[in-house]
Amino acid sequence: MALTREEHQKWQALAKTYLDKAGIVLTPQEQDNIEIADLGLGEFEETGLALVTYYNDDKYCAKELVLLPGQTCPEHKHPPIPEMDYIGKQETFRCRWGVVYLYVEGEPVDNPKATPPENRKHTYTVWHEVILKPGEQYTIPPQTWHWFQSGPEGAVVSEFSTRSVDEADLFTDTDIQRMPEIMD
Amino acid sequence: MALTREEHQKWQALAKTYLDKAGIVLTPQEQDNIEIADLGLGEFEETGLALVTYYNDDKYCAKELVLLPGQTCPEHKHPPIPEMDYIGKQETFRCRWGVVYLYVEGEPVDNPKATPPENRKHTYTVWHEVILKPGEQYTIPPQTWHWFQSGPEGAVVSEFSTRSVDEADLFTDTDIQRMPEIMD
Repeated sequence: MALTREEHQKWQALAKTYLDKAGIVLTPQEQDNIEIADLGLGEFEETGLALVTYYNDDKYCAKELVLLPGQTCPEHKHPPIPEMDYIGKQETFRCRWGVVYLYVEGEPVDNPKATPPENRKHTYTVWHEVILKPGEQYTIPPQTWHWFQSGPEGAVVSEFSTRSVDEADLFTDTDIQRMPEIMD
Repeated sequence: MALTREEHQKWQALAKTYLDKAGIVLTPQEQDNIEIADLGLGEFEETGLALVTYYNDDKYCAKELVLLPGQTCPEHKHPPIPEMDYIGKQETFRCRWGVVYLYVEGEPVDNPKATPPENRKHTYTVWHEVILKPGEQYTIPPQTWHWFQSGPEGAVVSEFSTRSVDEADLFTDTDIQRMPEIMD
């Protein structure tokens, strides 16, 4: 299910308000290009995120990620890409504003802070919890399942990484389509 | 000439005030580890910068750079390091707060906005000017001479790059010593 232009613009404007709260300045062109990843589900307030890609080449990548209050970036991993001779993306998440509950492979937590969207909870399988408050960061190795959800105020997260090849990402939820579609 | 502990702490506390202005949050440990690069000159308010390294491995690096008002990071380049099979650091500077006047190899500007420190001006040789305001960024290829100076309010700049090997940096000014020394 593709986003309408109106929905796309509405979510871009809303994401911008969170970047403002974090004190992050964008150029007008970057504002127009805020990526709304609704992942083809049509449930953006529950599942998805907004992204600003500052730089991405074959060596490194830097982005800002914006999560609405309680919004979830669903479980996924960055696989190797043999044709690029690439072991897959390694990424460092640094919380800038708000709180993020991050889940990765490892010892599961007993009482997780985050609750996945009820209709998709069967697609969440890793439960090792990392809580990131402003100034805190965590680095995820390539090929590692992970997902994250913001706290009740939303969150802004800087991502530093090796190259991003988003279309290669693998999601546990097979309903998901990574690359955005906007209806004309 | 090494910094005294008192000077070091004074510059760390001052750098922190600029990070605050940019809305950038550090952990207490990061605050304690703010790097004061006075470059061995003992003229920190004129020549040098403060740095916070968030992450640095053999793949990518992310830092914040802090410049006091009118402070200059002197001309240098990031050379190849054959023993690491490394062509040298590529870096993207993104201005977060204040204004930065950046100079790189290329067509020189007629009336540069920046003025190098008078006693060291003979060590500034590249004059292609790039002005970075908040939200604006520029990527410098490896092995490229560059230097930068903040505007009258100071500046905070995010640096996204390939790995940093600071001790390999080459400076035009042969009085400079990259790695910090603090007197015990």
